[in-house]
Amino acid sequence: MLGHLLDNVRNKNPMIHCITNYVSINDCANILLACGASPIMADDEEEAAEVTSSCDGLYLNMGMLSNRKVSSMLTAGRKANELGHPVVLDPVGVGVSALRRQSVKQLLSGISFCAIRGNLSEIRTIACGSGNTKGVDAGTADRVTEAELDDITAMAKDLSKETKAVIVVTGAIDIVADDKTAYCIRNGHPMMRMVSGTGCQLSALLAAYITAGQENKLSAAVAAVCAMGYAGETAYKRLAETDGNAAYRDRIIDAVFNMSAQELDKGAVYEMR
Amino acid sequence: MLGHLLDNVRNKNPMIHCITNYVSINDCANILLACGASPIMADDEEEAAEVTSSCDGLYLNMGMLSNRKVSSMLTAGRKANELGHPVVLDPVGVGVSALRRQSVKQLLSGISFCAIRGNLSEIRTIACGSGNTKGVDAGTADRVTEAELDDITAMAKDLSKETKAVIVVTGAIDIVADDKTAYCIRNGHPMMRMVSGTGCQLSALLAAYITAGQENKLSAAVAAVCAMGYAGETAYKRLAETDGNAAYRDRIIDAVFNMSAQELDKGAVYEMR
Amino acid sequence: MLGHLLDNVRNKNPMIHCITNYVSINDCANILLACGASPIMADDEEEAAEVTSSCDGLYLNMGMLSNRKVSSMLTAGRKANELGHPVVLDPVGVGVSALRRQSVKQLLSGISFCAIRGNLSEIRTIACGSGNTKGVDAGTADRVTEAELDDITAMAKDLSKETKAVIVVTGAIDIVADDKTAYCIRNGHPMMRMVSGTGCQLSALLAAYITAGQENKLSAAVAAVCAMGYAGETAYKRLAETDGNAAYRDRIIDAVFNMSAQELDKGAVYEMR
Repeated sequence: MLGHLLDNVRNKNPMIHCITNYVSINDCANILLACGASPIMADDEEEAAEVTSSCDGLYLNMGMLSNRKVSSMLTAGRKANELGHPVVLDPVGVGVSALRRQSVKQLLSGISFCAIRGNLSEIRTIACGSGNTKGVDAGTADRVTEAELDDITAMAKDLSKETKAVIVVTGAIDIVADDKTAYCIRNGHPMMRMVSGTGCQLSALLAAYITAGQENKLSAAVAAVCAMGYAGETAYKRLAETDGNAAYRDRIIDAVFNMSAQELDKGAVYEMR
Repeated sequence: MLGHLLDNVRNKNPMIHCITNYVSINDCANILLACGASPIMADDEEEAAEVTSSCDGLYLNMGMLSNRKVSSMLTAGRKANELGHPVVLDPVGVGVSALRRQSVKQLLSGISFCAIRGNLSEIRTIACGSGNTKGVDAGTADRVTEAELDDITAMAKDLSKETKAVIVVTGAIDIVADDKTAYCIRNGHPMMRMVSGTGCQLSALLAAYITAGQENKLSAAVAAVCAMGYAGETAYKRLAETDGNAAYRDRIIDAVFNMSAQELDKGAVYEMR
Repeated sequence: MLGHLLDNVRNKNPMIHCITNYVSINDCANILLACGASPIMADDEEEAAEVTSSCDGLYLNMGMLSNRKVSSMLTAGRKANELGHPVVLDPVGVGVSALRRQSVKQLLSGISFCAIRGNLSEIRTIACGSGNTKGVDAGTADRVTEAELDDITAMAKDLSKETKAVIVVTGAIDIVADDKTAYCIRNGHPMMRMVSGTGCQLSALLAAYITAGQENKLSAAVAAVCAMGYAGETAYKRLAETDGNAAYRDRIIDAVFNMSAQELDKGAVYEMR
């Protein structure tokens, strides 16, 4: 049962330091507040370590990357590791440029991550050195399908073994795995892909849930992924005929805001694999 | 009839690389998704050319400008030209500073644009070296009025001749012109000016429509301008008495999301001039 | 009666130059439009002074700070002082890092501010050199309570004497003070804390109200604080059971958009202290 992991976030109110892209930065801040955490956004190298020190967890998002931000991420990440704060990585569009491919290597070798979340293209790029990225979306060859679940699960477990991080692969079906155990999560709605930054927002949730539930980061990650997906389902039901992706954006955050532990327990659809 | 140009975007799902300001960056991403395109935002010089190479079109927006961004724009723009990708320019507040006036010259001399969209002050600044800018809005002397339509149309055609770009002047009436033909578009609603970034969003739509309809960029531009204006009308009708510019912002994007080819054909109000 | 100060903003339509953080930058732009002002965001040092010259007021927000932005703030601030434009400071999370603590000193010694707004932790950090900051929120020891009102009011008056700025301390109760007179404002709703950037938005409103009402900046500040708080109350009443902090965000801006002078007069709850 995952509901207590949701309550955990509300009870502990973890402060999450975010170094993230400017496209979805406001949505990430509001979804962190919605789930019961507190965000602080600060991406200058000069204050990165100090800000992280005053927080409980760290969220690094590679969207709109620059060398300036990579330096801040390395500084903050090392400090977070030193202090034992969980660090979550979202390798947005990691296949799209040499800058991102090289930066992710630097980040992975310089920082111990608690969790890494990406679409299949992004995770494949990290695991295998290449994916079929289409911009920041998974390429069509990288859709998560029932037939490929076993292969993806195996890749996620291997990558978890290598990185010690919980690996989260999101798509039509989501996979959450450590080196031994994997879960498939069947929450969510296809329209979530029409809202810019739902992936970034999920990674922010992951940071909040894992920071509040460090004693079992795999369960915390499963809870966060189910919560985001279930919020997408709840929000979709609230849409009027004339609503579109902008209304949906707000309603997903609102669904996270209003979600109770009982609802999450009831709505979460996941299985061990 | 413009409807097929809307379907064109949904069918081709063009990937648009955006180097844009941080005020409206999230709205630009969501309106691109709403119209059937895919956005990727990346403004670091180091990855600008590579990101553009993996996309279909490029959108450059001069809001919140810096020399760092101008360098990225030049790098991305040259690469896009080399690859034959359409490039759209939004010279936000170009009259407001020497940095912007000089940068627009650099951009115009270094990059071939497919389309340039601005309010009358911005387009006048480019065409004549000066306008009556009030911040990022058109100055009161630069309102598009019926009486001035002929003059503005002539200016737009001349600027199109000089730049080879389709020129889009937006205001109470919108003008879309190449060097030979001009259209006046009478869609839209005055309250759109109360939403920050509707101009930036229109320019993003232009990039999507022109990228999907390169064989006739003038028609594609007319379709994009009609679609945005008609979305503004549809969205306005949905507003409740207690709604304001924040609700309106989302409803405009939602109207773009839900617009069908048939609706655009029926709703578009334009004439050749 | 404060209503005429609201009408003042709508009648004068002040142009506000904002150097602000990227988390709430879009909301700040839209709330400025909602209240009747016009925003221009520009934070590059190269154009900072020129942009300020073309505006009526300046708003400096220390969220997501960097040395680059501090330079722009100093350049813009000095120019604004030279031209007699009001300058408002929001020392977001000032206690969180040495960068912010040192920067606020630089800003306070280099620029004359018309108003400074922060939560109790932020204002205490400026007034006394230290507060109990929790990220960008006030620490639990820094909640504004009835019992502490006299102490806080005295601190605000002292800081106003020292800085010549109107001091605005926001929390469960808001305090607005110059060196002689203080007001307590009892508008607002606790859920406003669940929306990222409501403090930043209030500071933007302050800049608009004070710029439009420079002849009595204390009254203008009281009006802005009441207007924001009352908008929070009005917006809260509009929330459906399934709405959350994302819907609330938009409805606060919408309430500012629709607020009349009469409503503000009727809704404002404040007392001299």
